[in-house]
Amino acid sequence: MRDVSIIGIGQTKVGEHWDKSLKELATEAILAAIKDAGTDRVDSLYIGNMLSGELTGQEHLGALISDFSGLRGVEAVKIEAACGSGAAALRMGYVAVAGELSDFVVVAGVEKMTDRSGDQVTASLAMAADGDFEAQNGLSFVALNALLMRRYMYEYGVKHEEFAPFAINAHRNAMNNPYAMFPFPVTAEDFKKAKMIADPVNLLDSSPVCDGSAAVVLCPTDIARRFSEHPVHIRASAIATDSIALHDRHDLLGLEGAALSATKAYSQAGLGPQDIDLFEVHDAFTIMSVLSLEACGFAERGRGTWLGLDGDIGIGGRIPITTMGGLKARGHPVGATGLYQIVEVVEQLRGQAGKNQVQDARLGMAQNIGGSGATVITTILEAMD
Amino acid sequence: MRDVSIIGIGQTKVGEHWDKSLKELATEAILAAIKDAGTDRVDSLYIGNMLSGELTGQEHLGALISDFSGLRGVEAVKIEAACGSGAAALRMGYVAVAGELSDFVVVAGVEKMTDRSGDQVTASLAMAADGDFEAQNGLSFVALNALLMRRYMYEYGVKHEEFAPFAINAHRNAMNNPYAMFPFPVTAEDFKKAKMIADPVNLLDSSPVCDGSAAVVLCPTDIARRFSEHPVHIRASAIATDSIALHDRHDLLGLEGAALSATKAYSQAGLGPQDIDLFEVHDAFTIMSVLSLEACGFAERGRGTWLGLDGDIGIGGRIPITTMGGLKARGHPVGATGLYQIVEVVEQLRGQAGKNQVQDARLGMAQNIGGSGATVITTILEAMD
Repeated sequence: MRDVSIIGIGQTKVGEHWDKSLKELATEAILAAIKDAGTDRVDSLYIGNMLSGELTGQEHLGALISDFSGLRGVEAVKIEAACGSGAAALRMGYVAVAGELSDFVVVAGVEKMTDRSGDQVTASLAMAADGDFEAQNGLSFVALNALLMRRYMYEYGVKHEEFAPFAINAHRNAMNNPYAMFPFPVTAEDFKKAKMIADPVNLLDSSPVCDGSAAVVLCPTDIARRFSEHPVHIRASAIATDSIALHDRHDLLGLEGAALSATKAYSQAGLGPQDIDLFEVHDAFTIMSVLSLEACGFAERGRGTWLGLDGDIGIGGRIPITTMGGLKARGHPVGATGLYQIVEVVEQLRGQAGKNQVQDARLGMAQNIGGSGATVITTILEAMD
Repeated sequence: MRDVSIIGIGQTKVGEHWDKSLKELATEAILAAIKDAGTDRVDSLYIGNMLSGELTGQEHLGALISDFSGLRGVEAVKIEAACGSGAAALRMGYVAVAGELSDFVVVAGVEKMTDRSGDQVTASLAMAADGDFEAQNGLSFVALNALLMRRYMYEYGVKHEEFAPFAINAHRNAMNNPYAMFPFPVTAEDFKKAKMIADPVNLLDSSPVCDGSAAVVLCPTDIARRFSEHPVHIRASAIATDSIALHDRHDLLGLEGAALSATKAYSQAGLGPQDIDLFEVHDAFTIMSVLSLEACGFAERGRGTWLGLDGDIGIGGRIPITTMGGLKARGHPVGATGLYQIVEVVEQLRGQAGKNQVQDARLGMAQNIGGSGATVITTILEAMD
């Protein structure tokens, strides 16, 4: 096994790209990443995507996108792990380079969701849930998160308004991200008045349906400096799973998949939460941020909302999260999200995050979650001196 | 990098499993493979599947199946590469073990196709084609293969009846495979009279729509004997891609993805086609067998049908193919097929193929193809003394 670094990053703006196809979005991100990497050597291409079949009638993205982006011939496959598909694809790329099976790997996440009706998208996203026990009974992803949020509020005596800082922080950070879908502020008052989606989850608890693609180029750390002035080292990459269906969880609010995934990642890196300078959390819903922060050791059980209330999650705070807008305000093109998170951590560790720069950021973590916690991928990145 | 071996195999019968769900089929194969492996240590689970979203409304198979088969917590993802999904998943498992990222990996392919109408299945399978240029214009997979077959017949002056030996051979071999969907013989006369599907492709040129799952357990070769009396060594595992759309190919009948994939595999193994004792070819259509055999060096260009006419492809022939019935007669549950091929090669190399045993088989090859040649995975296996 050898060390792996990221030498190139690329991304499209997140939004409603009605003028671009799925393969065009992916190619835009891939070519940007390759250009940024300073080399066009590519041995393998791993695509993270969840819904291309359901929403665009296209599978077989590995071959399709490798050809369209000028990489015909390379090893190429699609990796699917619901909303965790992006970071799961990164994990596969990491494994290939770490294990010396490939030298240069491009990993891209892509999703195209806005060409379909909201009903179609909601039904398709429910394919990340347990079809026999959840989707079959009409539970959408908002509804699943509503069950978690309601239970959390009940168990810990937390009020809905206490989740507001997560949305406010994400929107504030998105204002300085040219790739963000919602680069405008929201206030506590906005949060309070936001339209209810599935009680208690309201519109500002929720990330948007959107299109986008993000990509990275990986290579062995020992040659990374030949191509990049500021390579970023992957200190850890870990996937863990849990039951998909909420009723089957051993500990409903424990998010055990996230805890296991983070524990594996910390162990690989020889680090703990106290060492992490920023955390790209999977804030598909505000409750998911809170559960993830607790599962990863950034807050005690039942105390996650206090990180927001105490100002710990802002750029200058104890553990800055969603530093470029997160799923909430940068946007959540599901299969691409895991790669957006990685690209943003790399920007921070390179010192290229502009007004949102976390000072002296050396270690950044990203956690990408499939379903309501059933597949969890934790990645820890480190700046290279 | 270290050597990787297969220590366990499992499979379900291929057919119309209206009484079993997708996760039940996969679990049946996985538990059989784990039992056969003699160890229940599992670090990772890779699922090969193409159509679970489209046909059963379920994505996120990694978490779903890991939990249902008793492996909750392990790293688990779904790999998609159209009809090549199964062997693509095997490749990911191989990479993880070879690269020392995992020690024990279960790889399972699964597909559930028969719960839907033929029209739905045909439309879903067309998602393996190029949506913008092929599927959009109504080209089904049978039609794409018809274009290839018609061109082949024109270029080389080959008659349709000359493809018959491939179907006859597959059905003959399926008769001794208890897992085969069509364990009955067909004759040259049957082939001649078979219903036309997309001229010149008739019913007996074509593999069936069906359900099934097959699985293997991988571990490092140096400890394989602790668990298995007859481990099988993976000598090579290679993926290559080509343009999806036929009109974009550099050489329409050259099947360049297959040629590149086989070349990479031969190079990894230090072997050539003359060393291979049996070949599980991707006979989704008879024309695909012929093109694959030629691309892999078993016949000159334009001479592939002669392997059938000369009796070379039978169990006692020069290069036995589809030794347990192939896609044609064992069946082609698309995302599972690549693993069925591997399981069958392992049976041959263990000497467990019964009446279909290829004498003194030491080296077996399998080639799994996504689309009409756009993703091609070639695996070479060797018996361990």
